[in-house]
Amino acid sequence: MNDLTPSLSSPALDQAHIGIIGAGQLGQMLALAGIALGHRFTFLDPSAQPPAARLGRHIQAEYDDERALAQLAVECDLITLEFENVPVSAVETVTRHNQIYPGAQALASAQDRVHEKRYLTSLGVPVAAYRAVDCLEDVHAALADIGCPAILKTRRLGYDGKGQAVIRSVADAADAWAQMGGHAAILEQMIPFEREVSIVAVRSVRGELAFYPVGQNRHVAGILYRTDIHPEDPAQSTAEGYARLVLEGLDYVGVLAIEFFEWDGRLIANEMAPRVHNSGHWTQNSAVTSQFENHLRAILGWPLGATDRVGHCVMLNLIGTIPERMALLAIPGVHLHDYGKEPRPGRKLGHVNITAASPEQCAGRADAVARLIGSE
Amino acid sequence: MNDLTPSLSSPALDQAHIGIIGAGQLGQMLALAGIALGHRFTFLDPSAQPPAARLGRHIQAEYDDERALAQLAVECDLITLEFENVPVSAVETVTRHNQIYPGAQALASAQDRVHEKRYLTSLGVPVAAYRAVDCLEDVHAALADIGCPAILKTRRLGYDGKGQAVIRSVADAADAWAQMGGHAAILEQMIPFEREVSIVAVRSVRGELAFYPVGQNRHVAGILYRTDIHPEDPAQSTAEGYARLVLEGLDYVGVLAIEFFEWDGRLIANEMAPRVHNSGHWTQNSAVTSQFENHLRAILGWPLGATDRVGHCVMLNLIGTIPERMALLAIPGVHLHDYGKEPRPGRKLGHVNITAASPEQCAGRADAVARLIGSE
Repeated sequence: MNDLTPSLSSPALDQAHIGIIGAGQLGQMLALAGIALGHRFTFLDPSAQPPAARLGRHIQAEYDDERALAQLAVECDLITLEFENVPVSAVETVTRHNQIYPGAQALASAQDRVHEKRYLTSLGVPVAAYRAVDCLEDVHAALADIGCPAILKTRRLGYDGKGQAVIRSVADAADAWAQMGGHAAILEQMIPFEREVSIVAVRSVRGELAFYPVGQNRHVAGILYRTDIHPEDPAQSTAEGYARLVLEGLDYVGVLAIEFFEWDGRLIANEMAPRVHNSGHWTQNSAVTSQFENHLRAILGWPLGATDRVGHCVMLNLIGTIPERMALLAIPGVHLHDYGKEPRPGRKLGHVNITAASPEQCAGRADAVARLIGSE
Repeated sequence: MNDLTPSLSSPALDQAHIGIIGAGQLGQMLALAGIALGHRFTFLDPSAQPPAARLGRHIQAEYDDERALAQLAVECDLITLEFENVPVSAVETVTRHNQIYPGAQALASAQDRVHEKRYLTSLGVPVAAYRAVDCLEDVHAALADIGCPAILKTRRLGYDGKGQAVIRSVADAADAWAQMGGHAAILEQMIPFEREVSIVAVRSVRGELAFYPVGQNRHVAGILYRTDIHPEDPAQSTAEGYARLVLEGLDYVGVLAIEFFEWDGRLIANEMAPRVHNSGHWTQNSAVTSQFENHLRAILGWPLGATDRVGHCVMLNLIGTIPERMALLAIPGVHLHDYGKEPRPGRKLGHVNITAASPEQCAGRADAVARLIGSE
């Protein structure tokens, strides 16, 4: 599948029926990009009214419902996912009937923080010191090796800072362990990073690779809040090199994001997401081709679109509430993406991409939006 | 409604249920823009599986079905249309239950070529010499006034060159009249224009106005084939002035396009379309805000988005057939918009927006796409 020589695409995929496991905002944004390209969508998601359901057929079923997964696989021309915590067994069920990207191997590597760190280490990608821990005694032994401060995380199913506890001194260990709820965990050295950056990369069925400009991320309470795209970010070439190793090592197909800590001039991989990623949402309004379109081009075997930045851009998440639209949209260069969800504290309800012709203008507009959000 | 002082938007319209009369590709592209903004859609369209139906609820009914129109009006928060040949009576039915933009007056002016020319003339916007004709004797009398060559068109329901006949000499008159099928018609002076340009303009409920850069259009067999956006087009300020007169004169709300002939340094209005327009499709990939988003912002009473061009752009329609996607998408800067229709000769199946950083690069890419389309 690594043949880059030109080949005819399958006419069946010209206007494909694409199945997506998960129907949240990422599924919605994939479908918005895909419908414009002539495709149609079916989603498998356990929620009653997930955001993407209005954009296609919705099979309401649990992610481990073998019968529903087989139905999705048989009805669609090919399958992808918007959510990395789909059970690997579900992906294997789909694989018996149809092609799914990314595949089971990539998911397995990304679902378990210990496997992820082992895989990254095997490629020579730096990661924080870590130990797998299964009990409080393990935590104490690991702390003795790694030192404080450290961070204890469940190995599986964590996102947006959930399932994490900081250990500032050995005295915090028992409380932190209790927060893991008995789940297998990982203790990681806490990196006193200067900044967080991420790269969104894409690899097609045909082995074609593309990398978006690196984004600088800020998190609040564990949730991504803001991504800035700096022209000629000094982290670009190192991040691309690491992403290339990860994508090629997994024979990966689709978009994948890697988050890094920048510390003392080095990039230390924090985690990877085998899907379109929040830190790549800026590409909707400020890249030649969005991450959503490129994910679809990649799985369809189509040529990838250019990943160049056009103009300047900042992305701000809308968490818990969306500012009054008259004020928000009166700020020039504001592009609202509203996921159509019910507001709830801490919930990602949408994001705003702010575009401008210069970095200064962009920063000023972003500040104005941040004031409306009430976060700065 | 012309008060430009800031006002709070209605919270009911933050995530609105928008009804669209018509569910073709224009309805589809309005909904793709609107769903990203948090809205949902219901379409009224007589076809069984129109392009936009996958993006919301579809009420399958004729455009003069009073009951279906009333249902649409009552269920939705506000109504718009993607198709200007909706009967004015249908718009009046909707108006009894809910707000519809654009309104009956604007539609009535645009549906009848004689009314349209009279209205434009009343504003001081130049039009070709014309006469209303109802029989062959009228055609001969009009030809005696206007001279040859002239063009005979049905007054109503013409689009993409349908219902038109060229009269090169008086001997053609009888044949041309026969082609009108007994319908009321208009005889127009045939303008030996140097080029065709159009302006897409938008006016909001609050009276805010915005104008997109003028596009230069080329038609093949009466169907728009290509739109080029030239930086600083010399027709811009004149076209904007005329569009302002038209929009304000009609108290118009939404996007409206006016096509002009450029002849001997003057702009002569050919026709206007009270809706989003094919010559504005380039705005999806090369304007800060697309015509589709701005139409929705306008009818919702939201601030309009910037209409500036970003980079360089050419739009090419895909008529009758779509080129092989592997070859098409391998050309950098190509943005495919596939309406998901069954191919049929002469049918608009999609369009391609070609973007680039320079006019020369853009022209080269557009030539490559045109070669694939087989049209140049």
